[in-house]
Amino acid sequence: MTPTAEALDAGDALAGFVDRFDLPDEHPRVIYFDGNSLGPQPAGASVAVAAELERWRNRLIRGWNERWLTLVEETSEAVAALIGATPGTVRVADSTTVNLSKLVRAALGSAAGRPDVVSDRGNFPTDLYILDAAAREHGGRLRLLDPAPAPADVDAALDGRVGVVALSHVDFRTGALLDLNGITRRAHSAGALALWDLSHSAGVVPVDVGASAVDLAVGCTYKYLHGGPGAPAYLYVRPELIERLSSPIPGWFGHASPFAMEPAYRPAAGIDRFLAGTPPVLSLAALRAGLQVVGEAGVAPIRAKSEALTALAVELADDRLAPYGVTVATPRDPAARGGHIALRHPEARRITAMLIAANVIGDFRAPDIVRIGLSPLSIRFADVREGFARLADGLAVRAYEAHPPDLGRVT
Amino acid sequence: MTPTAEALDAGDALAGFVDRFDLPDEHPRVIYFDGNSLGPQPAGASVAVAAELERWRNRLIRGWNERWLTLVEETSEAVAALIGATPGTVRVADSTTVNLSKLVRAALGSAAGRPDVVSDRGNFPTDLYILDAAAREHGGRLRLLDPAPAPADVDAALDGRVGVVALSHVDFRTGALLDLNGITRRAHSAGALALWDLSHSAGVVPVDVGASAVDLAVGCTYKYLHGGPGAPAYLYVRPELIERLSSPIPGWFGHASPFAMEPAYRPAAGIDRFLAGTPPVLSLAALRAGLQVVGEAGVAPIRAKSEALTALAVELADDRLAPYGVTVATPRDPAARGGHIALRHPEARRITAMLIAANVIGDFRAPDIVRIGLSPLSIRFADVREGFARLADGLAVRAYEAHPPDLGRVT
Repeated sequence: MTPTAEALDAGDALAGFVDRFDLPDEHPRVIYFDGNSLGPQPAGASVAVAAELERWRNRLIRGWNERWLTLVEETSEAVAALIGATPGTVRVADSTTVNLSKLVRAALGSAAGRPDVVSDRGNFPTDLYILDAAAREHGGRLRLLDPAPAPADVDAALDGRVGVVALSHVDFRTGALLDLNGITRRAHSAGALALWDLSHSAGVVPVDVGASAVDLAVGCTYKYLHGGPGAPAYLYVRPELIERLSSPIPGWFGHASPFAMEPAYRPAAGIDRFLAGTPPVLSLAALRAGLQVVGEAGVAPIRAKSEALTALAVELADDRLAPYGVTVATPRDPAARGGHIALRHPEARRITAMLIAANVIGDFRAPDIVRIGLSPLSIRFADVREGFARLADGLAVRAYEAHPPDLGRVT
Repeated sequence: MTPTAEALDAGDALAGFVDRFDLPDEHPRVIYFDGNSLGPQPAGASVAVAAELERWRNRLIRGWNERWLTLVEETSEAVAALIGATPGTVRVADSTTVNLSKLVRAALGSAAGRPDVVSDRGNFPTDLYILDAAAREHGGRLRLLDPAPAPADVDAALDGRVGVVALSHVDFRTGALLDLNGITRRAHSAGALALWDLSHSAGVVPVDVGASAVDLAVGCTYKYLHGGPGAPAYLYVRPELIERLSSPIPGWFGHASPFAMEPAYRPAAGIDRFLAGTPPVLSLAALRAGLQVVGEAGVAPIRAKSEALTALAVELADDRLAPYGVTVATPRDPAARGGHIALRHPEARRITAMLIAANVIGDFRAPDIVRIGLSPLSIRFADVREGFARLADGLAVRAYEAHPPDLGRVT
């Protein structure tokens, strides 16, 4: 029999981290099941941001030499450490969308005669839009597999026209975890590069881009890395590829000597060549605080807790929600899923609205999924039980029928 | 005879604004001549940022619907009001580099048979790199005129292969103000689009993109708009062009229905189609504070003070610095320059180092220019006099010879 939530909390090696996050004080108590969309705020964020505001005020332009350039490097290397990247292969910059555009265009630009991109229909929409545009630009097309393909599915789709296999490590709807190692190997066997979006895995699922020989990766930092709303994203390029690829957005921060103001572009020798413009310092400062907490906890313990959290959620869904027609859309093998689970129900949109009204904050993904994100550093097992209890109570009396399906622009 | 600095300050309608900026408290008093690189911090910035940190903490993902999406719109419309753009034609997003890449690629993509771009050698380097890459991508080339071209110079360079004329409104080295109206007209006569980088003019030089029929514009917000280090940039597209151009970075924030998570890209109906990824909220919050102060002061009074400030600086350079071999590289007609002046001297790098050591913070532009940026809202005429006095004193005893030319990575 599964231990109780109390027992799980009592045995939680990361329990102390919950207090490092500033959570809202509301009644009923907020149960936050959306850390996979926007991670809660680490206690150090406001101090870190205030320090850079102070530096802006007191040091003015001198802040760049004294701190802000190294802030880019520090946050970049902190991300690198979390995804198994060697120093000098990751840079925090721009948004995930822009970084993906840079890397896939660079990759296709270097892959003569291989203009096609393979992805899956479950990939995050902005990824699909960018991949499609890049493939077309190079005279190819985007080939889409069914969601969460296995290595063999990818293998079957590969031929000599495919330059890049670009997938998200975790399916943002269902939480299915793709076989990054297996797919990367198949891509390489077929002569393609493997580009991974780690937005839903970095910081919660172990990733070792080095050992896995991942060629390219991007990811956002406002989910499990607790960087704050719209915190800048990152990109990774395998060391052997850095000098062979050219950024299609050759901006001054990617120049070999940015402040020499040379009229012609000369790419920086290392990973900096994939930088473009000036980074948003205040948002970087908050990100640094998030990365510090995640780094301190360590991804392996976080993953262990994450598996236990999602296991408890699946068990509670089976026990308490199945009678009301709720099914679990997430793989039941903990090794086959990421940090969130997906509940399926035809009234998912109204159910999400009902939950939010009860201060259980999850989100909705069309057409029929309630996402339950369980960000391990900021959530207790008892929170999972409490959130599912409120959900079961609402389902029992069909309270969702009273909730208009309008969830605002961000759903 | 020119009034004294005291008389100018006494008659300065904007004098009260100086107190709205938090300036450092150092000895000797900091004279900040680099507001054209990084504008000083408006008093409201830290409160504005703290409010969004609080919202992140308390409202979590709900912050997007409750505030952050409108923060993008508010900052965008505030920029629009400063550059004569109608509502719904400007969006704050990404960096200047990325925005320029989006717009010039979109423009060349729509201009069949016109793959060439005309610019000038004095344009900001990141602009030149991006323009060159875009022209090459479309099978064309970047044609470079001498710095600060007149309309007739541009006209002479135009033919049926030029799709875009892309220039900076103010030369970042010399401060020369280009004839935006005249050049835009010539571009249109030759069938080309006019794309302006307003980084060094918006907020300090009157710009009316509507009346001037500017097609496309970009700009940064951390100079005269006081948005803070790395604050997000903006882009403008002329209303008639919005639906005719496609963003080459089709990200989810540019989708007609971003949160419906549709598998295929459908561009938003209006200017939002040029958005890409998630905006950095904390940096946006600081920007809003900067835009409020600039909007409250008004660009016309700012420009009047700016002309008087640069006139005083030119007069002081002639009177006190010319004996030491310093010349003024900026046009002497106030109507022909922007908000900064450039002093030329073979030892400019060491002189800049000497100035910084004396808490007079200007910057260096290779090979021989000391830039003196005079951000009108945060500087007094007496500051100009004091800064030039310290400069003259140092030149008189050749104090710069003792200063190593190392200015750090950001010069």
